[in-house]
Amino acid sequence: MDAAWRTDAPNDPGAAERSVEDCVNVEELMALGSTRLDPEVRNYYLAAAGDGETARHNLEAFTRRRLRPRVLADLAGLSTESTVLGTPVAMPIGISPTAEHGLAHPEGEVATARAAGRARVPFCASTAATVAHDDIAAAAASPRWFQLYVGPERAPNEAAIRRALDLGFEAIVLTVDVPIVGYRDLELQSRRAHPDSPYYHGHWGHLAPGYDALASGFRSTWADLDWIVAACDGRPLVLKGVQSGEDAGRAVDHGVTAVWVSNHGGRQLDRSPATLDVLEEVVGATAGRAEVYLDGGIRRGIDALVALALGARCVFIGRPALFALAAGGEDGVVAALHLLHRELFIAMGLVGAPSVADLGPSLVGLA
Amino acid sequence: MDAAWRTDAPNDPGAAERSVEDCVNVEELMALGSTRLDPEVRNYYLAAAGDGETARHNLEAFTRRRLRPRVLADLAGLSTESTVLGTPVAMPIGISPTAEHGLAHPEGEVATARAAGRARVPFCASTAATVAHDDIAAAAASPRWFQLYVGPERAPNEAAIRRALDLGFEAIVLTVDVPIVGYRDLELQSRRAHPDSPYYHGHWGHLAPGYDALASGFRSTWADLDWIVAACDGRPLVLKGVQSGEDAGRAVDHGVTAVWVSNHGGRQLDRSPATLDVLEEVVGATAGRAEVYLDGGIRRGIDALVALALGARCVFIGRPALFALAAGGEDGVVAALHLLHRELFIAMGLVGAPSVADLGPSLVGLA
Amino acid sequence: MDAAWRTDAPNDPGAAERSVEDCVNVEELMALGSTRLDPEVRNYYLAAAGDGETARHNLEAFTRRRLRPRVLADLAGLSTESTVLGTPVAMPIGISPTAEHGLAHPEGEVATARAAGRARVPFCASTAATVAHDDIAAAAASPRWFQLYVGPERAPNEAAIRRALDLGFEAIVLTVDVPIVGYRDLELQSRRAHPDSPYYHGHWGHLAPGYDALASGFRSTWADLDWIVAACDGRPLVLKGVQSGEDAGRAVDHGVTAVWVSNHGGRQLDRSPATLDVLEEVVGATAGRAEVYLDGGIRRGIDALVALALGARCVFIGRPALFALAAGGEDGVVAALHLLHRELFIAMGLVGAPSVADLGPSLVGLA
Amino acid sequence: MDAAWRTDAPNDPGAAERSVEDCVNVEELMALGSTRLDPEVRNYYLAAAGDGETARHNLEAFTRRRLRPRVLADLAGLSTESTVLGTPVAMPIGISPTAEHGLAHPEGEVATARAAGRARVPFCASTAATVAHDDIAAAAASPRWFQLYVGPERAPNEAAIRRALDLGFEAIVLTVDVPIVGYRDLELQSRRAHPDSPYYHGHWGHLAPGYDALASGFRSTWADLDWIVAACDGRPLVLKGVQSGEDAGRAVDHGVTAVWVSNHGGRQLDRSPATLDVLEEVVGATAGRAEVYLDGGIRRGIDALVALALGARCVFIGRPALFALAAGGEDGVVAALHLLHRELFIAMGLVGAPSVADLGPSLVGLA
Repeated sequence: MDAAWRTDAPNDPGAAERSVEDCVNVEELMALGSTRLDPEVRNYYLAAAGDGETARHNLEAFTRRRLRPRVLADLAGLSTESTVLGTPVAMPIGISPTAEHGLAHPEGEVATARAAGRARVPFCASTAATVAHDDIAAAAASPRWFQLYVGPERAPNEAAIRRALDLGFEAIVLTVDVPIVGYRDLELQSRRAHPDSPYYHGHWGHLAPGYDALASGFRSTWADLDWIVAACDGRPLVLKGVQSGEDAGRAVDHGVTAVWVSNHGGRQLDRSPATLDVLEEVVGATAGRAEVYLDGGIRRGIDALVALALGARCVFIGRPALFALAAGGEDGVVAALHLLHRELFIAMGLVGAPSVADLGPSLVGLA
Repeated sequence: MDAAWRTDAPNDPGAAERSVEDCVNVEELMALGSTRLDPEVRNYYLAAAGDGETARHNLEAFTRRRLRPRVLADLAGLSTESTVLGTPVAMPIGISPTAEHGLAHPEGEVATARAAGRARVPFCASTAATVAHDDIAAAAASPRWFQLYVGPERAPNEAAIRRALDLGFEAIVLTVDVPIVGYRDLELQSRRAHPDSPYYHGHWGHLAPGYDALASGFRSTWADLDWIVAACDGRPLVLKGVQSGEDAGRAVDHGVTAVWVSNHGGRQLDRSPATLDVLEEVVGATAGRAEVYLDGGIRRGIDALVALALGARCVFIGRPALFALAAGGEDGVVAALHLLHRELFIAMGLVGAPSVADLGPSLVGLA
Repeated sequence: MDAAWRTDAPNDPGAAERSVEDCVNVEELMALGSTRLDPEVRNYYLAAAGDGETARHNLEAFTRRRLRPRVLADLAGLSTESTVLGTPVAMPIGISPTAEHGLAHPEGEVATARAAGRARVPFCASTAATVAHDDIAAAAASPRWFQLYVGPERAPNEAAIRRALDLGFEAIVLTVDVPIVGYRDLELQSRRAHPDSPYYHGHWGHLAPGYDALASGFRSTWADLDWIVAACDGRPLVLKGVQSGEDAGRAVDHGVTAVWVSNHGGRQLDRSPATLDVLEEVVGATAGRAEVYLDGGIRRGIDALVALALGARCVFIGRPALFALAAGGEDGVVAALHLLHRELFIAMGLVGAPSVADLGPSLVGLA
Repeated sequence: MDAAWRTDAPNDPGAAERSVEDCVNVEELMALGSTRLDPEVRNYYLAAAGDGETARHNLEAFTRRRLRPRVLADLAGLSTESTVLGTPVAMPIGISPTAEHGLAHPEGEVATARAAGRARVPFCASTAATVAHDDIAAAAASPRWFQLYVGPERAPNEAAIRRALDLGFEAIVLTVDVPIVGYRDLELQSRRAHPDSPYYHGHWGHLAPGYDALASGFRSTWADLDWIVAACDGRPLVLKGVQSGEDAGRAVDHGVTAVWVSNHGGRQLDRSPATLDVLEEVVGATAGRAEVYLDGGIRRGIDALVALALGARCVFIGRPALFALAAGGEDGVVAALHLLHRELFIAMGLVGAPSVADLGPSLVGLA
């Protein structure tokens, strides 16, 4: 996976000697975090499906877009503030749900959640957290959401949804792109190199003759979606993992509140498109009836600006948060968000948009 | 030829220490096989026409396509099963006819045929086998086909067709892309380096003044096709080496049962298109009147999925089978097929297609 | 920033031993200048926003264009002469306003201005000069212009405009692409490496929590433009930093004399388009009502020819002048202009255009 | 210039040990020739304008085309024979006029001409030959042509044309792409490195202040073309250096017999298009009223096939002939032509075209 060089210390020789405050951009922060991560954990975080093409595409898709600066705009009151599901945020860049933050830092998700709160950005907890969900809920400020995998059995999933809402999470984020766990070469290769590692349990099964791949995933259908919506009891339901306009439109018809464009960081189906490359068809299909989010490849404030201008209500970071957490715990994650904020703020001024609402597709062109 | 690095041990330093069971994808398996092949044989297998551009294009064409994942599909009964010429197969990925398997492993084509049988996939024997054709026929399960070159003389070729059918082969695969043997630089260079090698006899003649290039090939014409069809006596005739919609349509008009898109692994005419890039025009021209197959560049289950979604009834692997055979004999080939099956199965789930029949062009986009 | 290799001595090992007269093209001259620059100054000059993508795009955009040679034209009187704002010039390639020439050579802007005068090309002094503006005015021949940043306060800016005109500058060049200073990673990284360096003061503030990015720039609005035009009192006002047809058209409506397409050498907003890639829309929007200039990426006479053929009245060089100044002071800058003239002259002959007026879009194609 | 690696021995370590007969393709032959050339001469031959982009484009343009193989064609009588200006040739691949063959081999143009005669292909002598023109005329078989630069003075040029025709040359090839000698960085750099070398005299002048670039070239106009046509007295006049449909059509209107698409091997105007990329517009503009030729980038029989299929009547090789001459004198050039013939012959068979007349645009696609 080419993304490796972006975060791997050997390619940034000075990274290990730097402090969090020294880092001038998110990639430097990730390089620093990389030096502090157990190499097995780093590979677990970086693992992507197949040859890692989609993980790379997520990053490269942004480089093919061009921002069109506008001059002499009135920038009085320039601000990155916005709202997400009606809740005010300091900027529309949040933390994506990713598994097992405790592998990056002893405080785990509690540190990440607190960082999001300090930066006043959305935080979405993962089902697969290393910290108890009530501790995360207590550490997180609003907006705080809960990510869930749901299978076809109704009762236990309804209970899980109710539990999450009872803990104070304000929205349910239903991940639908893992009906089967993707085929992740790097993870299998890591497992081969470290057969006793605790990080790769289960996955080597991909190659075992009797392995039932279907048993690895979380499958529900369009028919199930109706009782899932009902189980949310009026609280927002976000569908995460949507990658086509067809599915986005259908999801809105079923009553979801928001659609989250994601390819699971390239970990599920290699050669699926960059999330940015399907954003516009999803925005078109939802036609304003639902908020649209995006994760995958956000490393710069200008990446965020492009997605926001093309119709995303909010974007989210996954691996950058994990590596920043490894770099400096809660302060590391705050630094990542601070850097993204600074870049977004400056870029908004330079395209002549004093508010997030002023960002629109006319500001974005193709290379 | 750039494809060399993909299979050459020096680029995968750990390859030689691995076992067949260790390999997590086909390229690793090929790298392992490469370490076990006589270098002269490896070059013979890898040899392509000219600069090897077409051999590379076959591989690269797949990377330009994007798979469009669909969510919340009902995946009950997910299966890669299909039929080819009416015969059930475990998956529509078979073994292409390639010459001289005995150079890769002492059991030669018998091992490859048995592996195909164990995996329940189509096996096509090559005329240029190192093992007697009746031994291959005995080793192969259904579907088992026989590849033939046919020249203009009628009687001996009719006899060859009859013999193949009598041995129990269920279809004749007529290769039509070698009216002249291609100009394969790597083979000539290998011959220069190893003038006494038994693998390159005959080919150096390309450069000899009195050499008659026409004598090297197998030429028949559209007019001959009628008696060839008749000689098959109702058994399926597959035309292999078709690379244009015009020829595909004309072939169907002449009564062939199936059309096989192939550029002979890039060994015939350099700078001819990737097979994937002509698949759609061939599918369009046959308009459902014949099955369409494809070989060239298949290394992943997702490669197979793309070709199947664009209208191929079955895809075939050539060099991967040879290198897997070198890696571990019959078990090596089974491992290659097992890896492809696992990847195809997972990918079908992730695009929301529970059966091969659910694969269609709407699942594929361009980069 | 990839542009670094183009000017960095290690990539041109012989550069340091060469004399200005030895250099056969501008890049050789820049490589020589690079060896004579304090590395901290070199990084200051090379610094670009973000990953330096736009700085690279400026250069690469020219390589995607093709010149269409025409034969048997009557080349009698072949000449690169033209006029800019009505003033005759030896060729339509001038010197862009850049800051602090004194860091490259003790004579600073006086040397650059004299060089422009010797070559009879436009010279635009920067507000941020290391030499007193009246000394520059005295050293410069016609056309000599003055670049200014203007904020919203009216009186001091009117005074500054009047002062520049009183000094003999013939036009005001109003830079409008710095409402906020861009986020320049290389500058921050340089500052980190050399915390006591005098070259990077102020900029590290980007990362300090209480930093007010808005305070760093020069903001005026379309409303302000009217009194700015009035303050010029009939003298030409050039709007520099325009990057869209919309802004160009609106600027002309407000009465500006000329529009200067520039992205500040890629120093302001990374991933903004190459200046060449927005030239045509700007030329279209001004529709002959204003002269159009361009800087960014000009390294060859053929670069200039492409921009002139697509509608620029004049092009300007920034970093090439600075590095040539470092290479040989006034003579270095003259050498750069001489090389560009020679290349432009020859190229005009080869496309069959005996005068600048004969250059038009039919001479340019895309790769 | 990137083309350098293609012919430079260090990139083909075995080249020096090989014999002409060992070479399996033209690039190997060129690599061998490169080891036998004085490095100063090699740079003189390789020199291209500017950064050598056009010299590279000439080569790369062929790699963007795809050949469409056709099967089951009747290949009886397969032959590369054709005619050029009515004269039969063994194949439509000839020798382009290039200067000073004597620097590559003591027999100079006599060796090249004899090689062309042995291979029965067109030979065009250059005005700037190292051997007396009557010796070349005597050594060359039909078709033998004479390349001429013509300036505006009528009488001496009419005499030159008459002299060439009297020597037995059968057509005049008028080169029109050198009204000024191009700006060739590599030549200037070579001159700098070897100030006493006899190969670069005159060219350094490009950089001297008083240098008159116009004096370096050969200028005639459309008006002159009429008396040039008349001076040919009914013998064929070929216009060499045409790079646009407009000029091609106009040339035919003026009575030229053939139009030769050439950019002087990329030596004149850098960033002019690959010759292959303007071939189709030239063929379209001549509309069958004149033969069309092409040189630039032909290294393979499949390159020739593409140009012939797109409408060229004949293609020509420049540098390959010079390097083959260095590799083995007359036999070296024969070997180059033999290799091209073998590749063209085989490729024609594989696209199903038994004669040159069967080659057409439907055989060529884009990548």
